[in-house]
Amino acid sequence: MLEVTLLGCGGMLPMKDRWLTSCLISCQGHSILVDCGEGTQIALKCAKRKTKPIDLICITHFHADHISGLPGFLLSMGNEGREEPVTIAGPAGIERIVNNLCVIAPNLPFDIKFTEISEPHPFKSELLTVTPFEAAHSVRCLGYSFVLERKGKFLPEKARKNGVPMCIWSELQKEGSAVYNEKIYTYDDVSEGTRKGIKLTYCTDSRPINNIAAYARNADLLICEGLYYEPEKINRAIKTGHMIYSEAAGIAEKANVKKLWLTHFSPAVTDPEAGIGYAKKIFPTTECGFDGKYIDINFEPQSVKST
Amino acid sequence: MLEVTLLGCGGMLPMKDRWLTSCLISCQGHSILVDCGEGTQIALKCAKRKTKPIDLICITHFHADHISGLPGFLLSMGNEGREEPVTIAGPAGIERIVNNLCVIAPNLPFDIKFTEISEPHPFKSELLTVTPFEAAHSVRCLGYSFVLERKGKFLPEKARKNGVPMCIWSELQKEGSAVYNEKIYTYDDVSEGTRKGIKLTYCTDSRPINNIAAYARNADLLICEGLYYEPEKINRAIKTGHMIYSEAAGIAEKANVKKLWLTHFSPAVTDPEAGIGYAKKIFPTTECGFDGKYIDINFEPQSVKST
Repeated sequence: MLEVTLLGCGGMLPMKDRWLTSCLISCQGHSILVDCGEGTQIALKCAKRKTKPIDLICITHFHADHISGLPGFLLSMGNEGREEPVTIAGPAGIERIVNNLCVIAPNLPFDIKFTEISEPHPFKSELLTVTPFEAAHSVRCLGYSFVLERKGKFLPEKARKNGVPMCIWSELQKEGSAVYNEKIYTYDDVSEGTRKGIKLTYCTDSRPINNIAAYARNADLLICEGLYYEPEKINRAIKTGHMIYSEAAGIAEKANVKKLWLTHFSPAVTDPEAGIGYAKKIFPTTECGFDGKYIDINFEPQSVKST
Repeated sequence: MLEVTLLGCGGMLPMKDRWLTSCLISCQGHSILVDCGEGTQIALKCAKRKTKPIDLICITHFHADHISGLPGFLLSMGNEGREEPVTIAGPAGIERIVNNLCVIAPNLPFDIKFTEISEPHPFKSELLTVTPFEAAHSVRCLGYSFVLERKGKFLPEKARKNGVPMCIWSELQKEGSAVYNEKIYTYDDVSEGTRKGIKLTYCTDSRPINNIAAYARNADLLICEGLYYEPEKINRAIKTGHMIYSEAAGIAEKANVKKLWLTHFSPAVTDPEAGIGYAKKIFPTTECGFDGKYIDINFEPQSVKST
């Protein structure tokens, strides 16, 4: 249903055995890419994913490890035959930054539309509601929540009670509204209220401020940075605007998310799993990210396939 | 003496098992990087080389696969503690292009100097003479020859004949000139004429024009693109401003070089070695490049270690 692939899990510097942190979110033939550091186009190939379904690229901030792969990525999209426009969303200034970078990709065969995020307000992608929010890094940095909404359950008894003709029941379920004898009916007339959808929250490069937990509230999955795991690295994390495993776990616990994936590991963290205990003692359903880590999240009651 | 490392051998697109074509030339603690596509900073690490000795970066042209890795590479140089300036040479416009790309690397801890090449004239790096020359691609593209000059042999009998006092022989050999009794002596007074140095010529992204062979004349090593090997790909090569193996071999033969390394293989060429016969029948000492391929070229009579 909502497929989430962590294309890379590295922070700061690309490494020979760890791609820079980025994420592909796919649903019914449409995909969103979050961040695009150096090598993300290769990471996408390693994960056996295509550029074709990507309608939207969300950039968290303008540090090179999150955006330097963009010109090459856009050129690859062109090489793969893309002609449809792509939207790039990011902090205010994104259009200027991308236009600067694309001085070496001047003749793309598709248009780029920009969503400049000054005040973070939700916006719609093809199938998901995207809600940016403020993180707390050394430069302005955004987190993003992605929600696949779920319509309320169809209730024939409510349809009958509201006098909705049976001949438009199917249309109402499919289109959300229908007209019969000049009267407009909506899906609300034949259903219970909306049900819980699927929610993914993504946040890297931030101190663990309350705002992250607020926007991650009840998420099915929180992907959050853990640059270091050793408690003694906290001062370095504070100084550079990052967080350690236990702080990410604290957010997950406070936000009541179902699952936490750690990512954006420092190049100094050679074995991210070695420190997982620091997070698990605060939030037991923590997992370490790795390049290509994948989950398919379904509506509740949900069945989950993961690697 | 002159160490040449082919960091990557791919053309057009970075691949998971082949870095984009770039080359590191090292001599007595100083290095020159030629081209810097996406991932070159990782390729450098894979080849176990450091950024520290790099004084000069030569860019052949402004297509993304030759320059997109530059902002990340420069940031890595900064992370590794560099404070000394770096010179970036390339076709006219290089300063504007690099400044655009470096919008995501705004606070480098070292200065960048630019050598804009309008008319290609030789210039000096720390130890080598760098001679840019015109290639023939879809945009303006430069090849480069790198020469390590070799002083003439010291001849005691000539020194005696010219009345050069023995107490300054050593200084003359080391410094090139010396003063004794208010008279200036030079190394020419005690030596034969200059001897053949070491010459490397590098050219990717070009049709096989005569100019390449002219500038590669008598090189110890020519590194040249062979985007495809199949003869039937010639039309595609002509259309896109590239060359096939046999054309690169033709240049090597015409230029009387000692050795040819092919590089910049198309992503469609999964096994570059499979086509080596097309080149070898024209120029027998052809070798296929691979990521990390290395040679240490010494003055004649030379001993060569290669992998």
